[in-house]
Amino acid sequence: MPLIVQKYGGSSVSDADKIKHVAARALESQAAGNEVLVVVSAMGDTTDELLDLASSVTTETQGNRELDILLTAGERISMSLLAMAIKEQGGKAMSFTGYQAGISTDSEHGSARIWKIDPSRIQEALKEGNIVVVAGFQGFSFENGDTTTLGRGGSDTTAVALAAALKAEVCEIYSDVDGVYTADPRIVPRAHKLAQIDLDSMLELSSSGAKILFIRAVEFARRHRVPLRVRSTFSADPGTLVYSSKDGEEMEEPVVSGVATDNTQSKITVIGLPDRPGKAAEVFQIVAEAGANIDMIVQNVSTTENHLSDISFTLPHNDRHKVVEALKAKQSEVGFESISYDDEIGKLSIVGAGMKTSSGVSAKLFGSLAKAGINIEMISTSEIRISVVTRADQLKEATRIVHTAFELDAAETAVIYAGSGR
Amino acid sequence: MPLIVQKYGGSSVSDADKIKHVAARALESQAAGNEVLVVVSAMGDTTDELLDLASSVTTETQGNRELDILLTAGERISMSLLAMAIKEQGGKAMSFTGYQAGISTDSEHGSARIWKIDPSRIQEALKEGNIVVVAGFQGFSFENGDTTTLGRGGSDTTAVALAAALKAEVCEIYSDVDGVYTADPRIVPRAHKLAQIDLDSMLELSSSGAKILFIRAVEFARRHRVPLRVRSTFSADPGTLVYSSKDGEEMEEPVVSGVATDNTQSKITVIGLPDRPGKAAEVFQIVAEAGANIDMIVQNVSTTENHLSDISFTLPHNDRHKVVEALKAKQSEVGFESISYDDEIGKLSIVGAGMKTSSGVSAKLFGSLAKAGINIEMISTSEIRISVVTRADQLKEATRIVHTAFELDAAETAVIYAGSGR
Repeated sequence: MPLIVQKYGGSSVSDADKIKHVAARALESQAAGNEVLVVVSAMGDTTDELLDLASSVTTETQGNRELDILLTAGERISMSLLAMAIKEQGGKAMSFTGYQAGISTDSEHGSARIWKIDPSRIQEALKEGNIVVVAGFQGFSFENGDTTTLGRGGSDTTAVALAAALKAEVCEIYSDVDGVYTADPRIVPRAHKLAQIDLDSMLELSSSGAKILFIRAVEFARRHRVPLRVRSTFSADPGTLVYSSKDGEEMEEPVVSGVATDNTQSKITVIGLPDRPGKAAEVFQIVAEAGANIDMIVQNVSTTENHLSDISFTLPHNDRHKVVEALKAKQSEVGFESISYDDEIGKLSIVGAGMKTSSGVSAKLFGSLAKAGINIEMISTSEIRISVVTRADQLKEATRIVHTAFELDAAETAVIYAGSGR
Repeated sequence: MPLIVQKYGGSSVSDADKIKHVAARALESQAAGNEVLVVVSAMGDTTDELLDLASSVTTETQGNRELDILLTAGERISMSLLAMAIKEQGGKAMSFTGYQAGISTDSEHGSARIWKIDPSRIQEALKEGNIVVVAGFQGFSFENGDTTTLGRGGSDTTAVALAAALKAEVCEIYSDVDGVYTADPRIVPRAHKLAQIDLDSMLELSSSGAKILFIRAVEFARRHRVPLRVRSTFSADPGTLVYSSKDGEEMEEPVVSGVATDNTQSKITVIGLPDRPGKAAEVFQIVAEAGANIDMIVQNVSTTENHLSDISFTLPHNDRHKVVEALKAKQSEVGFESISYDDEIGKLSIVGAGMKTSSGVSAKLFGSLAKAGINIEMISTSEIRISVVTRADQLKEATRIVHTAFELDAAETAVIYAGSGR
C-alpha cells in the first residue's frame, strides 16, 4: 500500500474545528487506499506564546536544553488532539513524539540535526491500520536522550525525513498557501501557481527568499529524492508538485520558473582594505566567528595608488549589528579604513532549471531593469539562478517588471496568499 | 547535605512573576545548606484548558494514551520555565520530565501507579549542584515507554515518591494554603492552623473530605515514613508538619485534631432486598463492576414478616447515576423491590490519634449534635475517626457545633483559605 506523508502547519491546526478538518482530510487519504502519516506543527501561535513566556522569566532565549523541552510542548498538544479527532471520526490513530517516532539527533539544542531515524514503532502502527501522527520539529539527543528541536522549518524537515526513511510516495506540505507561485502574489498580482517545479529550482527559490518551503527541508528532499506536493489545507486544489528531476522523467524545463524576492538583507561595505592576498579571508573569518551567514559578495578592484580595495557583502538584517561590531573591534589588526552599512537593499532572484541550456537570460534581466531605470548594485549567479540587489523601495517594481519580461504573467490576478506556518 | 523536596501547585506557578518567586524560594533553601528538588504542577488552569481542548475534538476524555500525552504538556511547560528562572537568578538548575526522572509506572493511562523510580540522573544533577526541577503528575509505562499520568493529586504523589526514593529530610507541599486547619475556615471561622499532625490522622482527614493533601500522596508518605510540611508559597510561615508517628518521638496526641466535611457524596438505598446470605455481596459486586468506590454502608435489620432488608451506602455524586442504572439493570436478578437515592447529604468526620485511648468521644459528638437538633442518618468509625451523615443544609452548622464541643475554637477568626492546586 503506498504511504503518503502529510505535514500540516500551525495555521492549519490553530483551533478545534481546523484540527477536525485535518482529521477528515487524513481519513480521506486513507480511504483512498493509502497508508497515512501526518506530521503536525504547534497550534497557531503556540510556539510564539511559549517563547514569550520564556522571555518573561529569562534572557537566555537561544537554543538550550530547557527551552527545547518548553517549545516541544506545543507539538505534543497538537499531535495528541489530532489523534483524538481522528479516532472520534471513527478512524484508528496513534500519536508519537519525536522520541517515540525514533528521531534521534545531535545535541545542538535549538537547531539539532537529524542523526538517524528508527521508524520501527511507526511502521508497526501503520501496519495495524493506524493513521500515524508525529509531532514535528522535535527529536531526542542520541547522546543523552534529552529532547531537542530542529530549528526553523523543523516540522517540514521532520516530514521529509520520515518520508525518506519510510520511502513514502510523496510528502504533502499543507498550509494556507495553495502552491508555489511564480512570484509573491502580494507583490505581483499576476503571479500564477506552478503545476510543478523541480527540486533544484525549488531549493534556489527557497534560499532566495521564497517562504513557501524551508531550505533545509528542500535540501533533505533533494538529497533523498522525496517528491513534495505543496497544497492548501482548505481546498481540493492539487497544488504544486516539487519533483526530483533525476527521476528519469526528464521534462522540458522552463527557462525561468519564478521570481523570488528578499527584503530581509543588509549590506556591509569594508572600505579601504589593503589589497593583499589573505585580507579578504581575514574579514570573512571575523564574520564567521560572529556567527553570521553571508549571502552575496562583491569586491571592487583596487583603483587607487595605495592599493586599497572595498568589499561589500549581504547578510540578514538581524546579524548586521553584531558583524559591524566584530569588524570594528579588529579594525586596526586587519587594517581597513572604515565600515559602512545599508539596511535599505532588496534582493531579486530569477530561478529556472532551463537556464542551464538557455542563453540571453541575464541580458534580458539586466535590460528590462535598465529600461525601467532601476540600478543594479550587486549581482550573483548559480547555474540556475541570477540574483541582483536593488534599492529596497524599488524591489516591488523591479519584481513586476522582471515577471512580465520573462512572460510569467497570468491572464488573471492571483488570489493573495498569507505566510506559511512553521 | 540534607535533601529537601518542594512541591508547588498550579496556583503557585500561574504566571511569570510567581515562577520567579518560586525560583527565589528554591534558591533560598539551597543557600541555607540543602540539596533541593522541586516538583511542579502545570501553570494555573493549564490542565483544565487542555481538557477543554480535548473535549472540543473528542468525547473520549477519560484516561487514554493520547490524553496523557496532551495533559503532560502542562508540567513540561512549567518545569522548563522554572529551571530557566532559577538560572536567570544565578543558580544552577536542570529540569526533568517524568521519563527523564526515571519514574516508571504501569500502563493505566489517566491513573497510573508508580512502579519503580530510578533516580540516577537526578542524583547526578543534584551532586553537580543543580536545583533539580521535576514535572509532576507524569511517568512512563515500563511496558512500552509511553507517557502516563498519575491521576488526581499526581504532583503530590510525584513529590512524595521522589522524597521516599531519595530519602529526603522532608517533603514540603506548597500551595496558597498555609497549613492544615482544624476545619475548613470558610465553614468554621474559628478554625486554627495545626503546628503538627500525625500521618495517620492526616490520612483520615484527607479521606474524609479535607482537600489540603491528596489521599494517595499521604498514603505513600505514611508507608515510606516521609515527613511532610504543608505551607504557603506566599508567606514565611512554617505551616503544618505532618509527621510519621512511628518515628520514636511519640507525643501526647490530641484526642481530636480536626473536623473534616464532605458535601460531594450521595446516598443510595436498595429497598426490599431478600434477607439471605450473599444478597448484600451481590449488590456490592454490581457497584464495584460499575467502577464506583463506596464510602459508608448501613444495613437495616429485616423487620418485616417476609424477610426483606434495606441497604444504604454513600458514594461520590459523580458515580451515583451509573450505579443506580447498573443496579436497576439487575433488579429482577438480585430480587430487590426498589431503589431510592439522595443527593442532599453531608458528611462530618472528627479525626484524632488520641481517640484510640480516650473514651466518651462518640458520646460527646452525638450529644452535641442532638442538643442542636441535628439528626444523624448514618455512622461509621475507624480507630481514630468517627463520621456521621447529616442533611446537606445542616452540615455547616453541625461542623461549627462539633468544632466548639471539642474545644478546637481559636481565640481569633482564621484567614480564609482557598482550594489547593493539583
